[in-house]
Amino acid sequence: MSVVPRESPVEGTIAILGGTGDQGLGLALRFCAAGCAVVIGSRKLDRALEAAEHVAKQVRDARVEGRENGDAAAGAAFVILSVPFEHTAGTLKAIRDRLAPGQIVVSMGVPLATAVGDAASRMIGVWQGSCAELVESLAPEGVHTVSAFQNVSAHRLQAIPEPVECDVVVSGAKEPRTRVMELCALVPGLRAVDGGPLANARIVEAMTALLIGMNIRYRVSEGIGIRFTGIPEP
Amino acid sequence: MSVVPRESPVEGTIAILGGTGDQGLGLALRFCAAGCAVVIGSRKLDRALEAAEHVAKQVRDARVEGRENGDAAAGAAFVILSVPFEHTAGTLKAIRDRLAPGQIVVSMGVPLATAVGDAASRMIGVWQGSCAELVESLAPEGVHTVSAFQNVSAHRLQAIPEPVECDVVVSGAKEPRTRVMELCALVPGLRAVDGGPLANARIVEAMTALLIGMNIRYRVSEGIGIRFTGIPEP
Repeated sequence: MSVVPRESPVEGTIAILGGTGDQGLGLALRFCAAGCAVVIGSRKLDRALEAAEHVAKQVRDARVEGRENGDAAAGAAFVILSVPFEHTAGTLKAIRDRLAPGQIVVSMGVPLATAVGDAASRMIGVWQGSCAELVESLAPEGVHTVSAFQNVSAHRLQAIPEPVECDVVVSGAKEPRTRVMELCALVPGLRAVDGGPLANARIVEAMTALLIGMNIRYRVSEGIGIRFTGIPEP
Repeated sequence: MSVVPRESPVEGTIAILGGTGDQGLGLALRFCAAGCAVVIGSRKLDRALEAAEHVAKQVRDARVEGRENGDAAAGAAFVILSVPFEHTAGTLKAIRDRLAPGQIVVSMGVPLATAVGDAASRMIGVWQGSCAELVESLAPEGVHTVSAFQNVSAHRLQAIPEPVECDVVVSGAKEPRTRVMELCALVPGLRAVDGGPLANARIVEAMTALLIGMNIRYRVSEGIGIRFTGIPEP
C-alpha cells in the first residue's frame, strides 16, 4: 500500500466491495491508475489487504487500501458493488447501517441464471425488475443508486495500460448518474453513455447475458464489448 | 416495377410484410440494391404497389413487386414481419395458411410500451418471452422463425448509398439463423452477429427500447446504432 499526496480527480474515495474478484480488481487498477483513492472491500480483511497489495504492485503511486466491506463503504463517495448477483442483497444488508445520505451506490450485478444453477447466457427474473432496482430497494434513504459497469470485460479492465475500448451505459437519477459518468471518463477507452432512469438497468443487465453467449459462440476469451454509434461528441 | 433477369444473390424472393413502413421500406431498398427479388406486402394492395414503385424509382433495375400480405408471403424464401408489434399476431394469423415448411419468417418486432399507450423507451411483457417467440408460437410447423433487424435505424437504411453501419443480432435455430446472417451481409455496413437461440430475442428486442431512450436524450434523429467489439473477422 502506498498512499501519496497526489491530487485525486474525484472528491472522496471509491470503495469497491467484492474488489477481490476479477472485475472489481480491474476497476480498482483503473481507478488507481487515474489517481483516485480506492478502498478495496471484502468480507475477509486479509483478502482485501492482499488485493490492495496486488494493485499497489501494478500501479505506481497507487492510493489503495484494503478493508472489510463495512469499513470500506463508510464515508466513501462511491460504493461499487462488485459481488456476484446472489450475494448483492446480503452484502448490502450487512453494510447498510454504514451508509449515509449523499453516497452513491453503484450496482454492477447481473441476475445471471447461474445463481440458480442454469447457464450464464440466461437471466433470472428479479422482483424489483433488475439487480440495480433491488439495490435501490435496500439502500437507506438519501443514498443514490446508479447502475453501471455490467458489460465491461474484466480481462480488458486488467490489461493495463491498454485502453478498455468499451461503452458503459449509466442509469439512475440525473445528478448521481452524471457523477458516475464522470467517473467512467477517468478510465482510458471507457465511454459513459447516458442510460436514463435506473429501471433501464433491466435491459443493460440482460445485455451481459447476451454478450456472455456471444463470447462462447465466437470463442472470445477477452470478452466482446459494446459500442454505440452515432452519439454526438460532448 | 422493373424486373430484370439479373442473378439474385439469394435463392427465392424476400417478402417484406409491412414493407410500406419506414423500416420495411428501408430493408426493401437495401435488398433491391443488393440485387435480390423483393416483394413488398401490405394489407392493402394499392399501398404495396405504391411502395414498390417508390423503390423502383430509387434503385436501378430493382426487382420489386407489391402484393397483398398473403400473396407476398406465399412461396417467398424469407418472410420479414415489419409491422408494429401490436399487429404482429394478427398479420401472422391472417397469412399463416399461405406459409409452407422450409420458409423462414423473420421477426423484427419489438414489444414497446407504445402498444398500451406508454413510452417507446419502455417494454411490455410478452407471454412467450418476446415478439420473436410469439411469432414462433403462431407459425406453422416446419416454418422457421428467426429474430433480426430490430435495432437497425430506418433512417440509416433509407440513406442509400451510405453504408448502414450497424450490427444486427440474429437469433434462432442454427441453419435458418445462418441463412438470415448471410442476408444481412448483402447490405453494405450491416454486420450480422450470431445471437444464439431464439429466446435471446428477449434481450435484443429490449435493446431497441434502450436505444430509443438514448436517441431522445442525445437528440439523435438518425438513430443511435450498436456495434460489438472484439468479434473475430470471419
